[in-house]
Amino acid sequence: MVKRVVAVNMALAVAMSLAAFAGEASDVRVDQQRIADRIERLAHFGANPEGGVSRVAFGEADTAAREFIKGQMREAGLEVRVDVAGNIIGRRAGSDPTLPSIMTGSHIDSVPGGGNYDGDVGVIAAIEVAQILQEHGIELRHPLEIVSFTDEEGSLIGSHAMSGFSKSAALEVVSHSGKTIREGIAAVGGDPDHLDRALRKSGELAAYVELHIEQGGILYEEHTKIGVVEGIVGIRWWDVTVDGIANHAGTTSMNRRRDALVSAAELVLAVNQIANSMPGRQVATVGQIRAEPGAPNVIPGRVVMSLEIRDLEAQKIQQVFEEIEKEAARIAKTRETPIRFAEVKAALEPAPTDPRMRAIISAAADRLGLSHKLMPSGAGHDAQNMARIAPTGMIFVPSVDGISHSPKEFTAPVDMANGANVLLHTLLAIDAGALERR
Amino acid sequence: MVKRVVAVNMALAVAMSLAAFAGEASDVRVDQQRIADRIERLAHFGANPEGGVSRVAFGEADTAAREFIKGQMREAGLEVRVDVAGNIIGRRAGSDPTLPSIMTGSHIDSVPGGGNYDGDVGVIAAIEVAQILQEHGIELRHPLEIVSFTDEEGSLIGSHAMSGFSKSAALEVVSHSGKTIREGIAAVGGDPDHLDRALRKSGELAAYVELHIEQGGILYEEHTKIGVVEGIVGIRWWDVTVDGIANHAGTTSMNRRRDALVSAAELVLAVNQIANSMPGRQVATVGQIRAEPGAPNVIPGRVVMSLEIRDLEAQKIQQVFEEIEKEAARIAKTRETPIRFAEVKAALEPAPTDPRMRAIISAAADRLGLSHKLMPSGAGHDAQNMARIAPTGMIFVPSVDGISHSPKEFTAPVDMANGANVLLHTLLAIDAGALERR
Repeated sequence: MVKRVVAVNMALAVAMSLAAFAGEASDVRVDQQRIADRIERLAHFGANPEGGVSRVAFGEADTAAREFIKGQMREAGLEVRVDVAGNIIGRRAGSDPTLPSIMTGSHIDSVPGGGNYDGDVGVIAAIEVAQILQEHGIELRHPLEIVSFTDEEGSLIGSHAMSGFSKSAALEVVSHSGKTIREGIAAVGGDPDHLDRALRKSGELAAYVELHIEQGGILYEEHTKIGVVEGIVGIRWWDVTVDGIANHAGTTSMNRRRDALVSAAELVLAVNQIANSMPGRQVATVGQIRAEPGAPNVIPGRVVMSLEIRDLEAQKIQQVFEEIEKEAARIAKTRETPIRFAEVKAALEPAPTDPRMRAIISAAADRLGLSHKLMPSGAGHDAQNMARIAPTGMIFVPSVDGISHSPKEFTAPVDMANGANVLLHTLLAIDAGALERR
Repeated sequence: MVKRVVAVNMALAVAMSLAAFAGEASDVRVDQQRIADRIERLAHFGANPEGGVSRVAFGEADTAAREFIKGQMREAGLEVRVDVAGNIIGRRAGSDPTLPSIMTGSHIDSVPGGGNYDGDVGVIAAIEVAQILQEHGIELRHPLEIVSFTDEEGSLIGSHAMSGFSKSAALEVVSHSGKTIREGIAAVGGDPDHLDRALRKSGELAAYVELHIEQGGILYEEHTKIGVVEGIVGIRWWDVTVDGIANHAGTTSMNRRRDALVSAAELVLAVNQIANSMPGRQVATVGQIRAEPGAPNVIPGRVVMSLEIRDLEAQKIQQVFEEIEKEAARIAKTRETPIRFAEVKAALEPAPTDPRMRAIISAAADRLGLSHKLMPSGAGHDAQNMARIAPTGMIFVPSVDGISHSPKEFTAPVDMANGANVLLHTLLAIDAGALERR
């Protein structure tokens, strides 16, 4: 009975909040120019000659950019702190002190030779959302936390620590900056010896939402404005070894060869054909290949190559792999070149987003008149860690030509603003109780 | 008129020599055990743990082995000298001081991690032939020169210098030993500044014959005892570049890819299929392949690979290349991945042996009751240089399983002796005027 009373009170509160939302907040839009300006200012930190940035986590440019972000957060009225994992967190209080925080953000570190949009858009848009709320005097019921995660492009240590999935061995890994993760975290004001204090337990966050560029070409090519992410694909990796017989390329006639590269070539085509022809959105890639001994005048005796398969469903990954294995067995037998698959122990499980979050994001896009579609995220994100402890959603905006991790990466200001508006109205809906209603 | 008198005298001399040959020499055979023993003793110089030798030219093991060879030559009654190119030459005088030398030999240097037969068999058999002639008191009309050439496995500088095809730049190349060719030649008693003095002009040698292991599996698999080499194949090389678009392996759907490795794989199969299906004994090999950027999670944007084509006829090499080029153009168009061929400026022209020499070798094998077949040499040899200045022939003996340039390389003692007997009777026939009669 007590529960029912609470529920009724909740419903009342939600109704009041929705009324307020309808009156005050539904017409609010982010400031596109301010987003574009901040993206441009952020791009100065670690700018490279090609027009992108090399701003690897814990490097000098990252350290300077972190100070810039803290300043922008303060400008947006946020209370800034750095947690033990080095995550920058800007907080805005809510009207109901009993409610958990809603969190949004992304990261500002880049790959070496990266671009100006990956991660940055999500952080800058989150700050913009906080600032617009501030400027319009819109008070949320929940506290709002804007986060810039530590080392997304390397260890994902920031979101790992926050979601309770950190292994101490990971701290000793040398990051792109040359510092170990441990040294890096300490240098940016974290406390690597007490990473557990970064943990947010399940229930401590009402939701996590991340805006990110698509990093693929689907939205751009289909002229769709918003991607509603169904989940972050799982990944499995294998080292594939094809054994033939190395021999003199001049003295070994064609019909006497056990050429490992010829078999490997057949397998590369099979991998592509299988992933292409099965229904679904799975991808399979051979990105690395080495022929041994690797001389123009020696028939390859061995080929070692990588195989990577991604899909939103672990079962589908397994299914694709089994098809590839079957075809490999046929090639191995026909060409008398044994083929072995050794799985690399680094698989990532698929991380589906919360179905309610997808619906809330889609509804926000609808209200804003923005076309949208459900799609997987083929790349990894901090959201895949946050999904373990909070209802998580992701919003994608178009990447021109699908280019990412490159100085040529580009997302138009209007697309960044579209994404930020969807983020804003998603947060407002969550604050208004949309998660409970769905 | 004077000429005719000489010709008559020649004919008389030949007839006399043939009579002597018929009576004394036709039953002579080499000493199989002595050949096997010397091969075994030679294998100690540079012996590696795998049972082969690493006896690269100019290295310590090569230097010591050279002294061993000089000693064996002296034991065979030869007068030993080292020419300006470092070639070891053991000479036996002939009965007619007006006649040019007949030369036979091979090399004793090895590739790194090589075996005990490649080159060695040709040198040891040549010494054996000289020693058997000595022991049987058989005097040849022509001087006989037994040669062990300098650095066959690297620069072929010994036979290059002897045939007048040396470029001074070649001297500055660093050999497997770590010494430059110049330093190496000087260290073994040559005179790199006067390599031209090693030159034998056309006509200065009556013939050059080389016995060598096949380095392929044809004789061994077909149970044929002797290979009569039709010539040393020509070689052309290309660097092949396939251009695709590098992209994120997770975010780029299968149907949006321009995967350079998938196109390259199709081309590798095409190269194999074309060389396999055209009539003839041409070979085509892709021995080297590199995908860029070469990460398991990035779709290859570029693949660079080697292409090598060999055949006895330059025209056939061109024909195979044109077929490959045609297929590459089709793949490039279909997959929208441009493919370029850049020829490496190091082509070797085919070096056919002298048809008379082939006939003399075949006849010698017939007389000895040894099965034989005409075949190309897919590997390069000093004989390809000597063919420019003298009627040249090559005799092949079986390599077990076709293995070469490996510690597992093996040729049975009886096969070495068979080859040495064919060499012996080939030399006797040449000495008796067989070249002039054919």
